[in-house]
Amino acid sequence: MTGRESDRVAVIGASMTQFGQREEWILELLSEAGLDCLEDAGVEADEVEHLYVSNMTSGEFEGMTGVMNALAHDIGAIPAYTQRVDQTSSSGGAGIYAAWQSIQSGASEMTLLVGGEKMTHRTTGEATDIIASIAHPVEYKTGVTLPSFAGMTARHYLERFDAPRESLAKVASKNHKNGVDNPHAQFQKEVDVETILESPIVADPLRLYDFCPITDGSAAMLFCPESVAQEYTDEYAIVAGVDGATDTHVVHEREDPTVMGGVVESGKGAYEMSGYGPEDVDVAELHDMFTILEFLQMEGLGFAEQGEAWELVEDGYTERDGELPVNTSGGLKSKGHPLGASGVAQGVEIYEQLVGEAGDRQVEADVGLCCNVGGFGNCVITTIMEAAR
Amino acid sequence: MTGRESDRVAVIGASMTQFGQREEWILELLSEAGLDCLEDAGVEADEVEHLYVSNMTSGEFEGMTGVMNALAHDIGAIPAYTQRVDQTSSSGGAGIYAAWQSIQSGASEMTLLVGGEKMTHRTTGEATDIIASIAHPVEYKTGVTLPSFAGMTARHYLERFDAPRESLAKVASKNHKNGVDNPHAQFQKEVDVETILESPIVADPLRLYDFCPITDGSAAMLFCPESVAQEYTDEYAIVAGVDGATDTHVVHEREDPTVMGGVVESGKGAYEMSGYGPEDVDVAELHDMFTILEFLQMEGLGFAEQGEAWELVEDGYTERDGELPVNTSGGLKSKGHPLGASGVAQGVEIYEQLVGEAGDRQVEADVGLCCNVGGFGNCVITTIMEAAR
Repeated sequence: MTGRESDRVAVIGASMTQFGQREEWILELLSEAGLDCLEDAGVEADEVEHLYVSNMTSGEFEGMTGVMNALAHDIGAIPAYTQRVDQTSSSGGAGIYAAWQSIQSGASEMTLLVGGEKMTHRTTGEATDIIASIAHPVEYKTGVTLPSFAGMTARHYLERFDAPRESLAKVASKNHKNGVDNPHAQFQKEVDVETILESPIVADPLRLYDFCPITDGSAAMLFCPESVAQEYTDEYAIVAGVDGATDTHVVHEREDPTVMGGVVESGKGAYEMSGYGPEDVDVAELHDMFTILEFLQMEGLGFAEQGEAWELVEDGYTERDGELPVNTSGGLKSKGHPLGASGVAQGVEIYEQLVGEAGDRQVEADVGLCCNVGGFGNCVITTIMEAAR
Repeated sequence: MTGRESDRVAVIGASMTQFGQREEWILELLSEAGLDCLEDAGVEADEVEHLYVSNMTSGEFEGMTGVMNALAHDIGAIPAYTQRVDQTSSSGGAGIYAAWQSIQSGASEMTLLVGGEKMTHRTTGEATDIIASIAHPVEYKTGVTLPSFAGMTARHYLERFDAPRESLAKVASKNHKNGVDNPHAQFQKEVDVETILESPIVADPLRLYDFCPITDGSAAMLFCPESVAQEYTDEYAIVAGVDGATDTHVVHEREDPTVMGGVVESGKGAYEMSGYGPEDVDVAELHDMFTILEFLQMEGLGFAEQGEAWELVEDGYTERDGELPVNTSGGLKSKGHPLGASGVAQGVEIYEQLVGEAGDRQVEADVGLCCNVGGFGNCVITTIMEAAR
């Protein structure tokens, strides 16, 4: 029943701005990434037919709404159709799904996706409060925040599966090590396991270095039908599978706190659509907003059995030279997490790995996966891409 | 290049809540419309595969984000994929476009669209300020608001085309008259031309009754492939054409202030896709946030020549028993304008007209059009639907 049976959806360009504390505000960040992406692909702004902006909170953080219309104006894409895509911290993945649908349905032949967020001008308390507003009211009113969910889940996981606290720290240290080679990462420095284990407690047992930072930044990808892609380049990637799924919005209603239903369901959909399985994936970007999430996604996506992801991390399986490199970009942990940009930046990393543009981070990969988690798994989008070659 | 060549996108259910000043907050309003829509179609919540929520400002107005995930939870649609669709005051039309893409691309076989906004708990000043945040920064900093754009455009139109001030008042009085027969409208009362002309000045020459009110409410539509629709009902509508387009975001950059480029371009796209022209349209819902906009859309969509829409209104052409009934629902003017709900409610009215469920508002119609305007025409979505019979 799908649309372009014989013409797959291609990605022909990608870019990301420097992530970190930026002087520019949201509209400038989006413009920078969007224009860089068009330049990367050799496509003019007036060729763009649909423009999607993944952004959660420009109104709350900056008092500016309608950023997608302002962006269409500022980069010269008018009269392209625009829409803002919000799926909380998985807005970027939702943008990939929206862009795929726009091409696959025939609505557009050239879709630019730009994700971005400007956050560092607010205090950590203000930012945390805005982000906590994604919780279901029945939990929000108890004062629960995302870090507290992460702490409780981590404690449960470690005790239940007899995993050492160090295994979580090793996720953070691995991703920081990868980030050293990402010139756009917020933190380009190694952090050793001891430093992580001695950092201040945030939500016991999780400490400061188990959490991603607050970040400004933007990332972009350009989509078109494969037949159009071939007019521009031989080096492109294909969106082989993409799907999204929700889990209980009230987190405490979940039967097993270590199983993220949205990860499992969206992964299942993406695998089915692509024809690939976990064993075919050569490189993955997982949503390591908290270190514990990397374990839960590895297990939900079938890279490890339940309760065993920590062993793979201990064994170096997910390091850059391991069997399945995870978060070669540095992940949210070292690259930073500008909400709406993060899912797009995952796609940018996988694209660059597939077309051989990942520089010092390059691994051998024909098939890559990214998993973008909204809230505490309230909605998850999984995307599988493959090299065109 | 489109997807379901032989299987069109159908609408099999629709609903709207009472519009007006509501005690309930956004999540309750969305749930009410969503559940009513599913009941209308005879579809269970767990059959929903994609759930789109058209909403502009739940974060700014109510401090709640992630409403789409909470809604999936509250109506029992988990693990359906969800996304919030924001296109400012045309979020509802953008939701129709997103829902169409989700079906046409094959991503979903059952897509529920729910639009809604909760606004009346804030003061008019607060609401106006939030809405003004959609303006491009270069105009926002001058303090310009949407009503002021409307006032300047109305003055220009009246002088340039030698149109009487009364013609604008007649738009308002016609739409109020239609609203009398809409049990869900915020105002179900007639307002005569004299009252309108004597109401307080807001943005000269426009007065209080030239503007839509601030409103709480929600509306919903259910989409699926036509082959699936036929399993449920014989009475459904088809999305024959839909397109969206931007115009300059900086309003003062437009060459002709009476030509809304987004209306023209999106209309052109919707006509082309559907194979219909303006002469085929039997009933239309236009975005009468300000009375002057009804003229500009009639002209941009080819229902009247430039500068002549006012004459058609004067002649009764757009009344319920006229040649082309416009805003049989009462329009935004009397029905109310809960931002994200409005474009969906336009679709609900056209659906009800096409399947013969419009009650006392019923007109003869095989083809209907709705035009949803974001900002001051910064982005516009036009949808054409036809009866399946």
